[in-house]
This record gives sequence, C-alpha cells and structure tokens, in this order.
Amino acid sequence: MRVIYNEQMAELADLLGGMAGLAGSAMERATQSLLNADLELAEQVISEYDRIAEMIQLAEEKAFALLALQAPVAGDLRQVVSAIQIVSDVNRMGVLSLHVAKMTRRRFPAHAVPEAVNSYFAEMGRVAVKMGATAKEVLESRDPERAAKLTDDDEAMDDLRKHLFTLIMDRDWQFGVAAAVDVALLGRYYERFADHAVEIGRRVVFLVTGVLPPDPDSEKESI
Amino acid sequence: MRVIYNEQMAELADLLGGMAGLAGSAMERATQSLLNADLELAEQVISEYDRIAEMIQLAEEKAFALLALQAPVAGDLRQVVSAIQIVSDVNRMGVLSLHVAKMTRRRFPAHAVPEAVNSYFAEMGRVAVKMGATAKEVLESRDPERAAKLTDDDEAMDDLRKHLFTLIMDRDWQFGVAAAVDVALLGRYYERFADHAVEIGRRVVFLVTGVLPPDPDSEKESI
Repeated sequence: MRVIYNEQMAELADLLGGMAGLAGSAMERATQSLLNADLELAEQVISEYDRIAEMIQLAEEKAFALLALQAPVAGDLRQVVSAIQIVSDVNRMGVLSLHVAKMTRRRFPAHAVPEAVNSYFAEMGRVAVKMGATAKEVLESRDPERAAKLTDDDEAMDDLRKHLFTLIMDRDWQFGVAAAVDVALLGRYYERFADHAVEIGRRVVFLVTGVLPPDPDSEKESI
Repeated sequence: MRVIYNEQMAELADLLGGMAGLAGSAMERATQSLLNADLELAEQVISEYDRIAEMIQLAEEKAFALLALQAPVAGDLRQVVSAIQIVSDVNRMGVLSLHVAKMTRRRFPAHAVPEAVNSYFAEMGRVAVKMGATAKEVLESRDPERAAKLTDDDEAMDDLRKHLFTLIMDRDWQFGVAAAVDVALLGRYYERFADHAVEIGRRVVFLVTGVLPPDPDSEKESI
C-alpha cells in the first residue's frame, strides 16, 4: 500500500506543479497579448484554459482515489487534503490569466492599457510568471524556505499595484475613466494571481511545519 | 462508527451553514456601511471577520478529524472532500465582505460610492445577502433545486454589475476617475461573493448527482 501511495502522491504533486507552471505560462502570454493588443495570442490563452480545466478535474479525481483506495493517515492524509485545497488555487490562477486575455480581446483592436502604464503591467506579468514557477518548484520540492520567497514576490506585486493606483487616482491621469477602470481591474487580477501562489506556499509550509501562516488577502487594505 | 460519522458530518455541515450565514450578514452590514458612510459599522464588520476566520480553522480541523478517525468511503468520503472545498469558498465570501467594509473605512468621511449609484449597491447587497442565506439552506438541506436558484441570483448579480459598468464607462459619468475605480472594484467584490455562493451550490449538486456543473467565473466576460 505504502509504495502505491507514494507513487500516486508523487503523480498528484507533479500534476499540481505542472498546472501551476501552465498557469504561469498562461499569465505570461496573457500579459504579452495585453501589452501588444495581440488578439491571436489572447485567443490562444483563452482556448488553452480548457487544458488547465481538464487537469483540475483529473487532479481532483486522483486526490479522491488516493483517499478512497489508500486511506492515508496522519502526514500522508494531510498531504492529500492540502492537494485538494491547492487544486482550487491553481484553478483560480488559470482563470485570472484567462481574464487578462479576455480583456485584451474585449478592447481589441485598441490597447486595453495606455502605453504610459505598460511598464507596470510588464513588471506585474514578470512577477506573476516568476511566482507561477516558484509555486511549481515549491510543490515539487516542498521546501518551506522557497515558499517564503513567494511572500516577498507578493509584496513586490502589491507595491506595483499600489503605484499603479496612485497613478490612476491622480488628478493628472489623462487617459479617461474607462482606461482607469480597466487598469484597476487588471491590477486586481494580477494581485489575486499572486495571492493564490502565496496560498499554495502557505499550504506547503503547513504540510512541512504544521503551522499555517496568516492569509495575506484578509490583512490587505482594499485599494 | 457510522453513528459517530453521521453526527460529526452533521456538525460540520451546520458549521459550514453557519459560516455562510455569517458571511451573508457581514456583507449586509458592509453594504449598509458603504451606503451610509458608516465607519462604526464598517469597523464592526472588519473586527468580526476574526470570528469567521476562527470558524474556518475549526471546520478544516473537523473535516480532517473526520477523515483521520472515521475513514469514510464512497459517498461519505465525497461529502467530507466537498466540505473541505466549501470551507475555502465561505472564507472568500467573508474576505470579500471585509473588502467592502474596508472601502467604506478608506474613503470615510466621504462616501465611497456616488449617491447616483447607491441603488445598484443596495440591490447588489440585497442579492448577496439572499445568496448567503440560500447557500446556508443548501448546505443544510442538500437540495439541488435550491442550489440551482443560486445560479439565477448570480445572473441577477451579473446584470446589476453590467448595468453599473455601462454607467461608469459612459462619457456622461460625472463623478470622476477615482469614484469609477472604486465602483468597479466594489462591483467585482459583489460579483465574486455571488460566484462563491454558486460554487457552494455546484459542490452540493455534485454531491447529490455526481455531476459538477461548469465554473461560471471561467465562462464570464471580463468587463
């Protein structure tokens, strides 16, 4: 039983890591589509979400089968329960990249984002991709120190979002209400993407140390 | 074993229902604080979130203990796994009501929302409270027909949000960029609150019928 459990748990962890990597890559291309008003790339991200959705279903089934057939206990059980919780975070990361791509499609052929704030989105995209990759590594290595790095990246994301908000809330903002609203919502999507990556890190820290760090989103100010 | 399982599962379902009810009540008061720029009420919602957070932890522990000590199989196992997934939706509903209350606090003594759109938020608040109450009932009754009603309410919420967006994106919008951005983000919080209530309904439908309805948020346009 133990050998089968280990094999199946390793498969599930690989699947979760693969999905986190895919979500990161989707956010990378969604960001490119946003910066270049590239409809084709946006459509690609949108149609590829189905693949993430299929993997989500597969991961939920695998976790359920593990519980049903292997009846794990103690630390093993905790691993499977964490995997179930992580699946939903990875799914949200995929959905949020989908939202960015849909914003590109919605505003095409115009750019959704004024060129003046392109650099913010390029940087938020870069941080998001990095966090997707780190989440993947954390899922595979279960290293709590790497998981802690996700919190640093999350702070960088929050700072970017705060800067962006001071720009759109400023009297000197010259691109109108519609662009400001798009920028604000996009900022929220990137921020939430980062929060879900942090959440994955929290779950891994919990698995290894038995202590769940606080939920960053409940502590944040709503800007 | 079976008697103990049934008792503990009933306790867990009550706890989840109680949390959904609390999240609904928090969103009701957060909406009132928003409409009246009532700082005291906003602070109350913010400090009471800790109670939801404690219940979340308790529910996770109860679900884990059920798996560890009762080793449920088949339908019973599916119930506990669903409960674990539902805990995170209820938590997000609580966090989103917290975000609305924090927006009130952030803009105080000013109103965060121009009086001209108060009626939209009053209505979105009403729908959110109703959905919190329905989610509670669905968790307690496990009635898939009631769960389906959550989808109707979710559509009403989306319509409200779309109307609100046409207002703020219109050239005639006269309340400036900052108010438009606040309205857009608040609209997103109410919409996500409704999505999580729908998600609870989807999980209950899955429990009863074995078929998981599609995720509404991945299908939506990003407005």
